Amino acid sequence: MGLFQEAQEMEKHSKSSLSVMNGKIMAIAFFEPSTRTRLSFETAMLRLGGRVIDMGSVEASSLAKGENLADTIRMLDSYADLIVMRHELEGAARFAAEIADAPVINAGDGAQNHPTQAMLDAYTMWREFGRIDGLSIGFMGDLRYARVINSLVQVLSLFDVKLHLISPPSLRPRAELLDFMRGRGMRFEMHDQLEEAVEGLDVLYVVRIQKERFPDPMEYERVRGSFRLTMESLRGARDSLIILHPLPRVDEVDFAVDQTRHARYFKQAALGVPLRMALIKLVLGGAE
Amino acid sequence: MGLFQEAQEMEKHSKSSLSVMNGKIMAIAFFEPSTRTRLSFETAMLRLGGRVIDMGSVEASSLAKGENLADTIRMLDSYADLIVMRHELEGAARFAAEIADAPVINAGDGAQNHPTQAMLDAYTMWREFGRIDGLSIGFMGDLRYARVINSLVQVLSLFDVKLHLISPPSLRPRAELLDFMRGRGMRFEMHDQLEEAVEGLDVLYVVRIQKERFPDPMEYERVRGSFRLTMESLRGARDSLIILHPLPRVDEVDFAVDQTRHARYFKQAALGVPLRMALIKLVLGGAE
Amino acid sequence: MGLFQEAQEMEKHSKSSLSVMNGKIMAIAFFEPSTRTRLSFETAMLRLGGRVIDMGSVEASSLAKGENLADTIRMLDSYADLIVMRHELEGAARFAAEIADAPVINAGDGAQNHPTQAMLDAYTMWREFGRIDGLSIGFMGDLRYARVINSLVQVLSLFDVKLHLISPPSLRPRAELLDFMRGRGMRFEMHDQLEEAVEGLDVLYVVRIQKERFPDPMEYERVRGSFRLTMESLRGARDSLIILHPLPRVDEVDFAVDQTRHARYFKQAALGVPLRMALIKLVLGGAE
Repeated sequence: MGLFQEAQEMEKHSKSSLSVMNGKIMAIAFFEPSTRTRLSFETAMLRLGGRVIDMGSVEASSLAKGENLADTIRMLDSYADLIVMRHELEGAARFAAEIADAPVINAGDGAQNHPTQAMLDAYTMWREFGRIDGLSIGFMGDLRYARVINSLVQVLSLFDVKLHLISPPSLRPRAELLDFMRGRGMRFEMHDQLEEAVEGLDVLYVVRIQKERFPDPMEYERVRGSFRLTMESLRGARDSLIILHPLPRVDEVDFAVDQTRHARYFKQAALGVPLRMALIKLVLGGAE
Repeated sequence: MGLFQEAQEMEKHSKSSLSVMNGKIMAIAFFEPSTRTRLSFETAMLRLGGRVIDMGSVEASSLAKGENLADTIRMLDSYADLIVMRHELEGAARFAAEIADAPVINAGDGAQNHPTQAMLDAYTMWREFGRIDGLSIGFMGDLRYARVINSLVQVLSLFDVKLHLISPPSLRPRAELLDFMRGRGMRFEMHDQLEEAVEGLDVLYVVRIQKERFPDPMEYERVRGSFRLTMESLRGARDSLIILHPLPRVDEVDFAVDQTRHARYFKQAALGVPLRMALIKLVLGGAE
Repeated sequence: MGLFQEAQEMEKHSKSSLSVMNGKIMAIAFFEPSTRTRLSFETAMLRLGGRVIDMGSVEASSLAKGENLADTIRMLDSYADLIVMRHELEGAARFAAEIADAPVINAGDGAQNHPTQAMLDAYTMWREFGRIDGLSIGFMGDLRYARVINSLVQVLSLFDVKLHLISPPSLRPRAELLDFMRGRGMRFEMHDQLEEAVEGLDVLYVVRIQKERFPDPMEYERVRGSFRLTMESLRGARDSLIILHPLPRVDEVDFAVDQTRHARYFKQAALGVPLRMALIKLVLGGAE
């Protein structure tokens, strides 16, 4: 829980700045774009007093000339004190970490991993409830392909929580994830609709359902309608329910929900900065 | 006039640096590109001791995934202390300002607004003449579609100036702008050629005529020739005449003019840095 | 030799930071992309305590609107204390230096010039051997079109070295370069294969052979095979031989070579940071 306590400490500085990372350089190595995650890391490093260099898009970089990933990482390693990496291939961050002397933070790789998102999601729950143990947490939407689900379930497996997995049948979590949950003795239930679970939830985590998952556009439209979060679908929810979303959202959370006491997704995004400040401090071992 | 005096103070530091914005972060949110304006703001913030994060191009950002503008602004608001925004839609900056807690500076939105350009234009006049009241100011070129004209006329309406509007008939200012000038009791004359007005001018502000405004390429060539500023077209001008241009220029100001005592467009561009330093200080309330 | 000694001093700070450039701004003006060179300069400036603004890609900049190079340079000159420029046209950096008040560093222009790469290459030799005089230096690959060869030969002409020029007949150095070497009284030999020269070399500098230089793809494949550096082709080399490469590499140096005592190309790339720190200090006259 050191990370969360450090993050809470960092919240005091998330709109000012520290000098703990003075003279340190973070290299952004995003082999696939992600504006939110990139800016969240950059802001965190700047608030700590550090500086940032950015490899830029792959198209504009040496990789376009045929350079292999290892050589690119070695280059960044010789420039920076810390590498923040995003890649479309699973395992790319681990591979980079084996090559680089500098620490590598995985800012998302492959289809299933986004560990710092999972950390900030869990941190948001901890900040809201003062604990994670005992929470009843619903996931709604595409639980099969959404990148954040896998990492977040791994983080939550460290706590005593009850999961409610709400998705269309074709987008239920993969067998590997279900096996993982069983192996860890996690309590979970599957649901075909939010209605079945909404009353008992402390947290509802919504993820987008992407059109390209459905061969039949009509089927997509039908499913999407059932898994959009609206004021109506929140009837029966506890007053204390909080709604999370990794953002960006398109229309899977109705704008009317933004005004309710339940909405926490903007706060959640904002908490990414202190969480990543804390993570950078832990990784680089900075002492104030 | 506080802004101009602050800007003049900032000129002392426009090639060194201050620490008044230490620990503050400016977010660049340029939904349409503008290298000059972006670099001018970035330089201003860096000279003040602050730091900069850049959303990057829209194609590479979350917006490409279908995120709405409000959510994007909320993201930047949770990271930065100040948002500098450029957008192709009129009113976008005002909309952003309503959503964000951080102040939003409009770096150009819609077809008619570019307030910080107008401020630096007026600042340049003030620095050159020690006053704006009493100046005789010509605008030459495309006065209908050029973004800067509208904002600059609004700024100048605060002063007692005489305007000379020099353009081909098809590119005269819009009726709304003429109405605005009349409503404010501004003195102005329309001209079909520079010759008619050049002798009395203190300031000549040149804007480009764009090919795409003319259905007939022959007509464009003819008009362009008449509204290019050359040594010859400056015959009869006062010694003290200064020529301004928002830049970039293509060929609407002949390169020979650069060498004359009249050329001030490069100095004008350079003054954008201290002007924006002053503006950022006023907006963020920084005290040295 | 002041540059090299300063660079060696800077090595102590190439993973920490100084404050000698506090408040100074470097403008990156890369009219053609080069991720490595850009990040190396940015890192150098940040390690010195300075800040960086980046014009970005030409497509996204004012140049796309038809602005001439001189006006673009004037803009950067009015913002920054130092301009680092890369351009596809030979002489562009010199032209910029004549226009700007700020110093301009040539980060590669035209087909033949890359002076800071040549400096860091020579610096690497100096650091490895404690001297450059007396070294036997092989160049292998495309010696006709590779950008770095020309600049490096110019730097080496200041020393007493023996050059071995190893290339396919069609990719031998241009007549101008051979004339330059003769004019300076440099000792050099031409070879058709590495085998002939490898035993006597202190340094082997490998450059890529690009497919587009060969009208006949079969001929390219044959030539490429003969000029790939492998473990086998290093048989007979001195223990103390060091292998350099400007990077990025594709496959012209076999990955197995990375593990040998000879490989220095990653160290060479890393030395670019202290070398450029020293260069920036000399150019901007910073005193600690």
